[in-house]
Amino acid sequence: MPEMIEDGSYVFIFLDHRRNWIKRVKAGEKFHTNKGIIEYDDIIGRPYGLKVDSHSGKTFQIHRPSQTDIQIAMGRNTQIIYPKDAGTILIEADIHSGCRVVESGTGSGALTSILANAVGETGQVYTYEIREDWHEGAKRNLSKYADMDRITMYNQDILEGIHESYIDAVVLDLATPWLLVEEAHRVLKPSCYIASYSPTIEQVMKTCKAMGESGDWGMIKTLEVMQREIMVRENKTRPTTWMVGHTGYMTFARTFAKEE
Amino acid sequence: MPEMIEDGSYVFIFLDHRRNWIKRVKAGEKFHTNKGIIEYDDIIGRPYGLKVDSHSGKTFQIHRPSQTDIQIAMGRNTQIIYPKDAGTILIEADIHSGCRVVESGTGSGALTSILANAVGETGQVYTYEIREDWHEGAKRNLSKYADMDRITMYNQDILEGIHESYIDAVVLDLATPWLLVEEAHRVLKPSCYIASYSPTIEQVMKTCKAMGESGDWGMIKTLEVMQREIMVRENKTRPTTWMVGHTGYMTFARTFAKEE
Amino acid sequence: MPEMIEDGSYVFIFLDHRRNWIKRVKAGEKFHTNKGIIEYDDIIGRPYGLKVDSHSGKTFQIHRPSQTDIQIAMGRNTQIIYPKDAGTILIEADIHSGCRVVESGTGSGALTSILANAVGETGQVYTYEIREDWHEGAKRNLSKYADMDRITMYNQDILEGIHESYIDAVVLDLATPWLLVEEAHRVLKPSCYIASYSPTIEQVMKTCKAMGESGDWGMIKTLEVMQREIMVRENKTRPTTWMVGHTGYMTFARTFAKEE
Amino acid sequence: MPEMIEDGSYVFIFLDHRRNWIKRVKAGEKFHTNKGIIEYDDIIGRPYGLKVDSHSGKTFQIHRPSQTDIQIAMGRNTQIIYPKDAGTILIEADIHSGCRVVESGTGSGALTSILANAVGETGQVYTYEIREDWHEGAKRNLSKYADMDRITMYNQDILEGIHESYIDAVVLDLATPWLLVEEAHRVLKPSCYIASYSPTIEQVMKTCKAMGESGDWGMIKTLEVMQREIMVRENKTRPTTWMVGHTGYMTFARTFAKEE
Repeated sequence: MPEMIEDGSYVFIFLDHRRNWIKRVKAGEKFHTNKGIIEYDDIIGRPYGLKVDSHSGKTFQIHRPSQTDIQIAMGRNTQIIYPKDAGTILIEADIHSGCRVVESGTGSGALTSILANAVGETGQVYTYEIREDWHEGAKRNLSKYADMDRITMYNQDILEGIHESYIDAVVLDLATPWLLVEEAHRVLKPSCYIASYSPTIEQVMKTCKAMGESGDWGMIKTLEVMQREIMVRENKTRPTTWMVGHTGYMTFARTFAKEE
Repeated sequence: MPEMIEDGSYVFIFLDHRRNWIKRVKAGEKFHTNKGIIEYDDIIGRPYGLKVDSHSGKTFQIHRPSQTDIQIAMGRNTQIIYPKDAGTILIEADIHSGCRVVESGTGSGALTSILANAVGETGQVYTYEIREDWHEGAKRNLSKYADMDRITMYNQDILEGIHESYIDAVVLDLATPWLLVEEAHRVLKPSCYIASYSPTIEQVMKTCKAMGESGDWGMIKTLEVMQREIMVRENKTRPTTWMVGHTGYMTFARTFAKEE
Repeated sequence: MPEMIEDGSYVFIFLDHRRNWIKRVKAGEKFHTNKGIIEYDDIIGRPYGLKVDSHSGKTFQIHRPSQTDIQIAMGRNTQIIYPKDAGTILIEADIHSGCRVVESGTGSGALTSILANAVGETGQVYTYEIREDWHEGAKRNLSKYADMDRITMYNQDILEGIHESYIDAVVLDLATPWLLVEEAHRVLKPSCYIASYSPTIEQVMKTCKAMGESGDWGMIKTLEVMQREIMVRENKTRPTTWMVGHTGYMTFARTFAKEE
Repeated sequence: MPEMIEDGSYVFIFLDHRRNWIKRVKAGEKFHTNKGIIEYDDIIGRPYGLKVDSHSGKTFQIHRPSQTDIQIAMGRNTQIIYPKDAGTILIEADIHSGCRVVESGTGSGALTSILANAVGETGQVYTYEIREDWHEGAKRNLSKYADMDRITMYNQDILEGIHESYIDAVVLDLATPWLLVEEAHRVLKPSCYIASYSPTIEQVMKTCKAMGESGDWGMIKTLEVMQREIMVRENKTRPTTWMVGHTGYMTFARTFAKEE
């Protein structure tokens, strides 16, 4: 990652947790917010991690976009898998540097970029998206922020079949994940993980039932993660009033070997 | 990772979420539990992802140890950072393939192994532990399960100073994290993260105060993560009765650049 | 409570959990919402528990105002103690039919009405409010919805002293509850409860410290309550996305006897 | 409630939140715990709210049994509705002084005693229990701690029909609550509440479905309540490590009037 903000760099402009943006810096241009104007020429050639006062007296922070900044920016206006759930998926599905991972659907690409960051240069993410508009949108998003060498994108219904085999992990965010359970087992290495993310409990029930009846899956478990922010201010320390109470359930299971 | 269980392989033996073990397979030997005996010769030469019936009729699953299996096994009898928190740290502190990360204390090495998995071959984890017994214990643990090429271990009080510089992330699990805030800023790249894990709210208050007063840190935020397991059984679906209600708070902040 | 809606009755008009109102029915008049108009003459003389179609095709429910309906209506535009916390206070502070309870501050009167409902005809609520505007506002609110025979209202700073003695419970929602700990002990019967509600953890710390140092209080404990709504719809069952993550902490303690 | 501990009084003996008991004081006798012995003669004639040192140097607190002390003592060895849920039921189902409430099953009587406390002298609780042993056990429990004038007990399957009518609230803790939805509507006043407590989500789904299809119920909602204790100790303030993650879901709904 470059150290200095250059003409053409992406920057994360932060006012507070509600008002923040990822923007591409262009020499001679400005970023207008209702809290003031930032002139890009004021930040080009300076390091990331800047404090900049806008013309109206507000202080903006200018950072290098992190993976959560990117994830949230990609997710604007769509349903995404939140950082809190993405972290759990990485850890519980044993996804790390060097892994080959299948994902579906691609959606906005937000989780795809997290997975690409995790698997690194020696891994690969294969991502399937049935809707052409989302596939194209994700391609645009990922081209900006992710290393495309680590990502293979298909505009295809994953229910028609997975092209890869001998995979380290399968990550699903599908309306009908139970229909992919058999195919996932076919392409996964033995003793490797499926992670299925679903907003509703009925999806979870059907998926767990399909897994249980197949006899192919061990250590089936379903988690939900609640994250709360604590506002730490002298003599006013307290959790935030509102929090996200539910995003989705995550079901994890591990392949039994196909012995004969 | 090898596909087949060999003499000398580590295996994760799973009966249920309370009774499970990581063991090293030795030809001719047996694993005794109060639910039955597993003969290692019965599993050597077969793939991971096995179901094995013990002599007493219980079914054990034999898996390749995953990063959470290892993390939990390392953490037996000590305080560890739980998987739910480790996932949040990876995501929120922007730790991924290629990063150079400083950690303290090493403790049992449980988080060190997660970090080493995340940073991959092209990254490095520098871990500091003041207590010699824990440093030595972590070294033994990590030698078994982690790629030691990615890990540099110091038996040293990190408050005496960090040897590295130009670091991508600093991860702290210290009794007095506020004392390291200045040093962490010195060694971190601009616009990079510190993550501080603390069980008590007073530790969080002091750390946030030190960060705020220094003027060196942006986007300071404190999170707590609650994870709940859902037992999915036909007509008996419900969250588990007991859950971990608190492990620790995690404070994240991002370095402002040191401009002159 | 009357069975039939009469001219002058209060009704709870419910469209959904965000759009609902308590209104006084007046013959010949109408209630205008942006979802349609309800003519009061259409509901006068009919029982509570009605479904009424507005002119725009929306269905409104007309109910007898319950204690939570009243509590939430009173609390509009102010900070109130939520139903979830009020229930915990009743149970944990052992407040029930026949109790004599001291409360401060009165605020909007929302908790006062809950307490008056709980203590019944044979109990009494003594409520102190320092601000005259809130005292007057609460008096107006309570005159509409509560049995004023059970309520004694003071427009007075409770820190100047409590008029009553031999009290069954003291319920505080004050900025500085630790300053009232000694006085509360003076007026409470032995082995009876104080309940202190505070949004911030520093308030809790100071209150618990004052209680502990006095040696006057047993069984000191602090609780927080999180309530989540589950949306139950066929094949779409899931918790709501947003929930209230924090309102306040509740500290309970029990008086040791003043023996000589 | 008597002020002084007498021969024959019930006392709540508290060592900590795990070790506490309700006992009946008898002159000349002793209470033996593995933390020491309490001689009842040492406490008879003294007020509730005592600190007593046992022979082994531990300090026990002697309190008048509160409704939660009783509720928890009754619930030992059985499933009970926890205080956190009982408080929510009182508030959300609008149960207060003067109400006539139907409950089933009686179970240990723990919730029955809470309800009897809430409805007071002018209300009544009608409680149905199909199992004779539980009915008898609850009768023994309630005779000790509750005002039996407020309680009517039936050893009967409530599915065979409710004897009362014109009821203010129906509270269910049944395996098949959906089978009682119609009968509950028959006996409830218009615009009054049913509260159904169920551990599993399938029970909730069936109950909500039965309510929805009948067209008899308004404002159907399902809640779950999580309660966490905060350990407040100087420089060691933090939530407890373990908490109850799930007890049951509570579904509330309100009767539409039966107009013709």
